[in-house]
Amino acid sequence: MTSGSTLGPVIGPGVGTVETRQVRLFDASHPLTLASGATLAEVDVAYETYGTLNDSGDNAVFICHALTGDAHAAGLHEGAHKPGWWDNIIGPGRPIDTDHLFVVCANLLGGCQGTTGPASINPATDVSYGIDFPLLQVKDFVTVHRALLAHLGVRQLLAAFGGSLGGMQVLEWALSYPEDMTHAVIIAASSRLTAQNIAFSAVAREAIKRDPGFKAGRYLDEGTNPDYGLSIARMMAHITYLSEEGLAEKFGRRFQDSENPRHGFGADFAVESYLHHQGEAFLGRFDALSYLYLTRVMDYFDPFNGVDENAPGDTFAAVEAAGTKFCVLSFDTDWRFDTGHSRRITHVLERGRLPVTFREIPSVWGHDSFLLPIPAYHDTIRAFLERAREERL
Amino acid sequence: MTSGSTLGPVIGPGVGTVETRQVRLFDASHPLTLASGATLAEVDVAYETYGTLNDSGDNAVFICHALTGDAHAAGLHEGAHKPGWWDNIIGPGRPIDTDHLFVVCANLLGGCQGTTGPASINPATDVSYGIDFPLLQVKDFVTVHRALLAHLGVRQLLAAFGGSLGGMQVLEWALSYPEDMTHAVIIAASSRLTAQNIAFSAVAREAIKRDPGFKAGRYLDEGTNPDYGLSIARMMAHITYLSEEGLAEKFGRRFQDSENPRHGFGADFAVESYLHHQGEAFLGRFDALSYLYLTRVMDYFDPFNGVDENAPGDTFAAVEAAGTKFCVLSFDTDWRFDTGHSRRITHVLERGRLPVTFREIPSVWGHDSFLLPIPAYHDTIRAFLERAREERL
Repeated sequence: MTSGSTLGPVIGPGVGTVETRQVRLFDASHPLTLASGATLAEVDVAYETYGTLNDSGDNAVFICHALTGDAHAAGLHEGAHKPGWWDNIIGPGRPIDTDHLFVVCANLLGGCQGTTGPASINPATDVSYGIDFPLLQVKDFVTVHRALLAHLGVRQLLAAFGGSLGGMQVLEWALSYPEDMTHAVIIAASSRLTAQNIAFSAVAREAIKRDPGFKAGRYLDEGTNPDYGLSIARMMAHITYLSEEGLAEKFGRRFQDSENPRHGFGADFAVESYLHHQGEAFLGRFDALSYLYLTRVMDYFDPFNGVDENAPGDTFAAVEAAGTKFCVLSFDTDWRFDTGHSRRITHVLERGRLPVTFREIPSVWGHDSFLLPIPAYHDTIRAFLERAREERL
Repeated sequence: MTSGSTLGPVIGPGVGTVETRQVRLFDASHPLTLASGATLAEVDVAYETYGTLNDSGDNAVFICHALTGDAHAAGLHEGAHKPGWWDNIIGPGRPIDTDHLFVVCANLLGGCQGTTGPASINPATDVSYGIDFPLLQVKDFVTVHRALLAHLGVRQLLAAFGGSLGGMQVLEWALSYPEDMTHAVIIAASSRLTAQNIAFSAVAREAIKRDPGFKAGRYLDEGTNPDYGLSIARMMAHITYLSEEGLAEKFGRRFQDSENPRHGFGADFAVESYLHHQGEAFLGRFDALSYLYLTRVMDYFDPFNGVDENAPGDTFAAVEAAGTKFCVLSFDTDWRFDTGHSRRITHVLERGRLPVTFREIPSVWGHDSFLLPIPAYHDTIRAFLERAREERL
């Protein structure tokens, strides 16, 4: 195996059986006002928690999920065989240790796994919002996360965690409300997408929008589905989630189901079969409009816009006063958000006199690494959280 | 500008007005037998020539085009404003100097610009081949190129040139028929696609195949067109043709037609507008089935399969005896076929005792560099060709 390709063992039995709960955090009497000024009269949020909140309400960590994640970060749903998407790191004795911590994960606003999004019913029309759903910003995710924590009685987070789009939420949150958390862990994320990053998402969105089943964003009313476009978008995204080395190690030029090529347009190469599978598996669990809305949020995200990167002056004075500590992690073969993105975050924060632990972790698995039990990665998270807990004692 | 982003001037007025000619090289009495064993009863080839063939028939160079190229490499078609795709390098006084050389370029077998391909009429059925067109191999392109040279009276090529898929043709040709050319110039090419390379083409093909207008490959008979899928394929390909740095330099996060974001799902960022344009412009000039057939040829190409890369022994004895000299060029920001691909070609040929000039050229423009007037690149081609001509004198 290539260096950085070895995955570590997953510790212990995990958090066991869990369920997703749902709460209405905003309603007609208390609507959600978005950063754009638009409002949403009803916002339901799907979330899960693991571990126990202590009496002082300060042993919580919040997990911000990435583009296609959901509230089910750890444990098993009743009858299911596949655990939550970040189960390998959350549980008793695991790096995010539920023997000590109260872990919260919520489906994003605009998502499609129990939190209000484009597929939800618009109370003003009694049909789904569809393309009338308002455009979102990362700030809006943070607003909803904060409302959830208030509902749960969390006074201050020990840490917020997030990979990719999740890390963008953590960055926005820590800069806007630094008193909400003592530690901010930003993994494989970006403070500003490059033209290439935007280009990939743009083509994915075009695949969805041009699908005849998209019906100008009214497919939910029309009873169609832009499945073809959504599966193409997902296949393309998967190419960017794995590194070239990772794809080479996992598939190389191997043929599927055969030693020899069958010569045709079917999924002859193993990598083709993998992509087809990823495209199909996505259809059952994700809404095309959520894909459009959430990727667009990432394109526009630019929290350091207007900040002099080399001399931010007092831009982050409030964050400095709150004492929030940052941990910024990248993976050396990640090319969706390469280490340059993490270095920029680190650079700007440090120039702004904020304490940042930065580490680039060797891993062959590209952007997907943030989801995997890579020993050096898990050790870093574990050590950072243990230090955080000690500082608070 | 970033280092390696400066383009050079294009020398002189070029080759002037040119036209594409067409010749039937194979017919019922002399059908084309493909490497797979299948046959094609009629093969027409579209080609252009520039300069004059000398009496000994040995001042010719052949230009092998890439995936979406055509026979129109240089000069202007009557009334047109846009010159051929490689005009900047071909002409009197240009690196491929038509004052001395006879230049030939032909549309590929399986293409859609005048050479027989899937959209051509199958003489056995009187309707277009469509998906019944036989699968091709790079060997088949070479067979047709050779037939064209025989038709034109070319005895031996001074050089064959090709970028990307064109370079793959040159490699195959030089290994199979080294006596056909004294020099082989292989640019930004590959001797074996990686899993990531295949993955991009696989998703592009799925976009075409899943387009409802594809009609299982019978769209030409059905009067439909998989335009949506073809434009998505093209947009995705364009991301891989430019480097991340090139996209950043060309577009960055600039907005189209505005200083400020318009916040919506339209082409708000300049890079989106560019991709949309590339997707649309492609539809008028390329056939979806040709895209399928020609990309699939690349996936299966593996001329060193079975060769011990480090000890090829006498594998290339015939090439060594013929004395063919190789020039292998790559561009440092090309990630469609990165320098590793060119290094592998160089390594295997050199281990096989063949003379190879290898150079990695700095250029910010990624894979597209092979089409651009990059001074270090053009200087290399010019010097290599001048040496080639001197050797022959």
